[in-house]
Amino acid sequence: MAMELKDLAPLLLKKERANGDIDPVVLTNVLRDGKAANDRRKELLQVIEQHPVLSDRGMMYRNHTERYEFGLKKAFHYAKLLEEGGYTDPVDQQILYKALGEPLSLDVHRAMFVPTLENQGDDEQRAKWLPLAKNYKILGAYAQTELGHGSNVQGIETVATYDKATQEFIIDSPTLTSRKWWPGGLGKTANHAIVHARLFLDGKDVRVQAFLVQIRSLDDHQPLPGIEVGDIGPKVGFNAIDNGYCAFHKIRIPRENMMMRYAKVLPDGTFVKPKSDKLVYLTMVQVRAYMIKTAGMQMGAASTICTRFSAARIQGRTPDNKGEFQVLDYQNQEHKLFPLIAISYAALFAGGSLVEMHDSALDVIKKGGSSFGAKLAELHAVSSGLKAWLAERVSDGIETCRRLCGGHGFTQSSNLAHLFAEIVGANTYEGTSDVLVQQHARYLLKSLASLPVKEDSITFFNQVKRYSDAKLRCDARTVEDFGNLDLLLEAFQTRSARIVLALGSQMKAAKNNGNVCMVLMTRASAAHTELMLLEAFIRGVKNLPSGPEKDSVTQLCSLFGVWLITKSLGDFRQHDYLSSQQVDLVREQVVRLLPIIRKNCVLLTDAWDFSDFELNSTVGRYDGDIYRALVRRAADEPLNKTQVPEGYEKYLKPLIQSDL
Amino acid sequence: MAMELKDLAPLLLKKERANGDIDPVVLTNVLRDGKAANDRRKELLQVIEQHPVLSDRGMMYRNHTERYEFGLKKAFHYAKLLEEGGYTDPVDQQILYKALGEPLSLDVHRAMFVPTLENQGDDEQRAKWLPLAKNYKILGAYAQTELGHGSNVQGIETVATYDKATQEFIIDSPTLTSRKWWPGGLGKTANHAIVHARLFLDGKDVRVQAFLVQIRSLDDHQPLPGIEVGDIGPKVGFNAIDNGYCAFHKIRIPRENMMMRYAKVLPDGTFVKPKSDKLVYLTMVQVRAYMIKTAGMQMGAASTICTRFSAARIQGRTPDNKGEFQVLDYQNQEHKLFPLIAISYAALFAGGSLVEMHDSALDVIKKGGSSFGAKLAELHAVSSGLKAWLAERVSDGIETCRRLCGGHGFTQSSNLAHLFAEIVGANTYEGTSDVLVQQHARYLLKSLASLPVKEDSITFFNQVKRYSDAKLRCDARTVEDFGNLDLLLEAFQTRSARIVLALGSQMKAAKNNGNVCMVLMTRASAAHTELMLLEAFIRGVKNLPSGPEKDSVTQLCSLFGVWLITKSLGDFRQHDYLSSQQVDLVREQVVRLLPIIRKNCVLLTDAWDFSDFELNSTVGRYDGDIYRALVRRAADEPLNKTQVPEGYEKYLKPLIQSDL
Repeated sequence: MAMELKDLAPLLLKKERANGDIDPVVLTNVLRDGKAANDRRKELLQVIEQHPVLSDRGMMYRNHTERYEFGLKKAFHYAKLLEEGGYTDPVDQQILYKALGEPLSLDVHRAMFVPTLENQGDDEQRAKWLPLAKNYKILGAYAQTELGHGSNVQGIETVATYDKATQEFIIDSPTLTSRKWWPGGLGKTANHAIVHARLFLDGKDVRVQAFLVQIRSLDDHQPLPGIEVGDIGPKVGFNAIDNGYCAFHKIRIPRENMMMRYAKVLPDGTFVKPKSDKLVYLTMVQVRAYMIKTAGMQMGAASTICTRFSAARIQGRTPDNKGEFQVLDYQNQEHKLFPLIAISYAALFAGGSLVEMHDSALDVIKKGGSSFGAKLAELHAVSSGLKAWLAERVSDGIETCRRLCGGHGFTQSSNLAHLFAEIVGANTYEGTSDVLVQQHARYLLKSLASLPVKEDSITFFNQVKRYSDAKLRCDARTVEDFGNLDLLLEAFQTRSARIVLALGSQMKAAKNNGNVCMVLMTRASAAHTELMLLEAFIRGVKNLPSGPEKDSVTQLCSLFGVWLITKSLGDFRQHDYLSSQQVDLVREQVVRLLPIIRKNCVLLTDAWDFSDFELNSTVGRYDGDIYRALVRRAADEPLNKTQVPEGYEKYLKPLIQSDL
Repeated sequence: MAMELKDLAPLLLKKERANGDIDPVVLTNVLRDGKAANDRRKELLQVIEQHPVLSDRGMMYRNHTERYEFGLKKAFHYAKLLEEGGYTDPVDQQILYKALGEPLSLDVHRAMFVPTLENQGDDEQRAKWLPLAKNYKILGAYAQTELGHGSNVQGIETVATYDKATQEFIIDSPTLTSRKWWPGGLGKTANHAIVHARLFLDGKDVRVQAFLVQIRSLDDHQPLPGIEVGDIGPKVGFNAIDNGYCAFHKIRIPRENMMMRYAKVLPDGTFVKPKSDKLVYLTMVQVRAYMIKTAGMQMGAASTICTRFSAARIQGRTPDNKGEFQVLDYQNQEHKLFPLIAISYAALFAGGSLVEMHDSALDVIKKGGSSFGAKLAELHAVSSGLKAWLAERVSDGIETCRRLCGGHGFTQSSNLAHLFAEIVGANTYEGTSDVLVQQHARYLLKSLASLPVKEDSITFFNQVKRYSDAKLRCDARTVEDFGNLDLLLEAFQTRSARIVLALGSQMKAAKNNGNVCMVLMTRASAAHTELMLLEAFIRGVKNLPSGPEKDSVTQLCSLFGVWLITKSLGDFRQHDYLSSQQVDLVREQVVRLLPIIRKNCVLLTDAWDFSDFELNSTVGRYDGDIYRALVRRAADEPLNKTQVPEGYEKYLKPLIQSDL
């Protein structure tokens, strides 16, 4: 008798590994910041995996209320673990936190409330509040977004007025839409909030400022008088978090509760304007660099799951009718999956580049360098473009991985839907795509208008004459020529420069009305972002030690380039930079690379070194033992605790045994 | 003081309607099969909306177990309603069922179990079981898919052997992966199942047959001896349904329980081969036509919600800094949203065309026409291509609508995530995309090899010489030329024919190994499907009465065409059918149409005539009163029943009031 499928699946995955010729550890050390860092990471993962509460992964069985309540329990044990385990290193803390498998209600306290006190409080404020916040004596939310206004921060309606007589601010929500809406942890958890409100001093609008407002009693957690607060309800993701609403009915807070590090209000009501604070922008860039690396890792997680499933699963007869294809044998599966593996690598390398750019900008500031403004503008623009592109492509990519796992991808136990739900919000928060791509495109436009430029990501603009020449042609003659990374780079540079030029003309014709050029701006941002990703990927490849690992990642990089070209052929065909025949070669190169990459695809995803606990996926297990895992997981479904469902007596029996 | 946002929102939506120049009712009558049918639909919706149980829309607050249990309650009341209200018309029943807002555990009983008895049972079997099934005395599942095999039906492992001595079949699950896995209603609800198993007669494999197997007691609903049955756990969608697993341990059923309408097993164990049954294929086409229309309607629902939100929501300062843009003012919003409105119309018209093709094929059968085989092949192929294309584009389109609604789209109360979760499975069930596009592409290939052809959807192949001429050029000279629907049609025909030709060459070079041509097959299927959608859209437009409605839908159709071209410029630029300059014109036409379509976009979506109850969306309300709706809905969140969350005493208080 032939081998049973349940035993064949692990063997098939093993075979894929045996057929590869790379050592994933070589790549792990690159993707995970070195061996020491990765060893520490795995050690910390063990801590969570062995914790009786923090190892819980039952979120799929819970509704929002239950996930929130269980999340409180987790948050408590997480805080306790840090304390008792003496985990004071922020990197350790972050790894432990990520290992919880879902963001919790104390997330914003940790990631935004405390840092805001640190960055925007003056010395006195920090001395007073930081110890309280860091020890959870006060739990904070970050209340900026309102029901009526999100991305247009200057539109927020919450009002602060100053009462000289008592030296207090009066915080008020004058309209229904001025209620704070969305802040994480605001609904049921936080007892304080950083509240953004438009400040009026003697009737004069001095713009939006940040205030620390207590919203719940420290004794019994009841909302304070004049505060309406609650949870906004279930969401696509983050359901362990109490994203909340809050309305203020003329709440009085002491003058000292305005964040005073930059802008100030003196006791007599005098407003002291803030000094410009470029460090705030740098912080934003740092947050984005982190998001970009995270996007890469999430794409890495999803593509790991999908690759392993595709190797272990067989389905569909081979042409000789003697056996079945592994799902990974299908050209379409490879064609959809491998570019996503490439995106994961590209994003990680690009995130790394951004961190380096950030750090060197910080150096320049510290040395008081003069080119700081230009560097900051570049960082802000390119991080905008990268964030917008990756949020979209990675969430879509994770969903693609889910679909590539067929029915088993549709079950929550694949964990792919959870990964999707937790990242897809990145399209919305920290800057919606439309705003970001505009900022990026406007930067490109401005830079092209002030050549020569010095910033690395746009120096190719200095050759704009060459690129704008409609007679410029791509040099490739053969399929293999499209494996040349320099040739690909020039193609992406040409495309990017030409779109920015076209945007310049269109903006001029539109008398600088950006809105009627937004579609083109979006293309300009995407084109430059893809160039940056390809550049970062190539840099990443060049930094690898020579050997089969470098060769294999080079092939992945090469696929990334040609695959991206096939996604935007209209751009590359413009003025026949690529000819019709060359497009055929590009398409041929894409499919030619698939079986080549197939050889190491399992090992390329193994290289992320995700543990089974992290992936939490029945079908993405390292050992390929997917069928037993699916059966075991089904046994956990609460409906299976009894043979007969609760509603049988009331709703099924009457149907079956009597007339209605 | 300026008007409050909460009051402005409804006014803005009103203004959009006032600015339009079409009467949506004219279109409603087309989209909803005439006034009488639509009136009946709305009457029936009222019945559900006013029902104390069936009007429930609390699914977002429930986990899978709770949704299943509440779903039982709904299923019971639905059955009761049909009985008591005397709703015997299947169309009425379907409308009432759809109005429940989520598929229920009796779905498969209704939609697959009963029809299988009807279509595959012989007269005796039907007489015996149909009355029982129709009156819910037996509740059935349709158990084909297994843990190890889904789309490859011939790979299923469940075994049936015939015991002549007792005239019984013995049904057995010989392996872990042979357990049935996925069937809706199988887990906890059904007491019978149509089980597909490979039949062996005296050791001879006579392929997969269908058997009726009782799985639970009719007395107490306990699983029968030898049956292991349960729920497979939470999924992306369909969480009110108990998708189940089932293993059979040598269960004996009478010979009469094999479905005997086609294949038969005589008492002595003789196998009677089935007569070919082409009607089965026609049933499949009918199911797909229904799925295609449904896809159009779901796209209609999502785009209605998104359009209304985009009109009612303002965000971001206008260049003059005096006011804020409506979200609908943004070019990117229009550029992403309007093509989705177009897809909804195209899908509905294409579904309608398919129904007509199906009906006329049925006519041909009834008249015993000789061209039936060719017609059936066409229907099967084109319905495959349409289903694959629309499942993907409509699920992605709904998710796009969700993202276009920003943060408010991310809350479950927008209902967009629910719409997505309930349709995205269509990428997987009823044929996965990869299988479907191959079948479609192979049909195209075969047809092109046997010219001339007569089937409507491919008659353009007869001009293949013209299309294959590399000197053929598109005639357009101006932007407006790309508004010419005939010109667009020719472009799509040229593209489709050329890809099929290329596929022919590639298949020949690959010695007919389809797998290495799958990427190209996918392109071939998509290209032909887009042509069919455009054709169906144009036919739909032509059938509209003259007037502003027809003009407006024509513009939408025109956008559909040029927008599709921009998505596949590489194809249309092949051999310079479109020149680089013409591509610029195409892109210009796309953005030129946006403000034109904007004029009536709200009315074009109003035309679907969804009730607020159906849309169930805080942000998609007809009256635009979105902010009050969001606030009201948040009040329903169970976490808001108490001011202080349950976990406070145990998990928050210790953090706040004492040292850890």
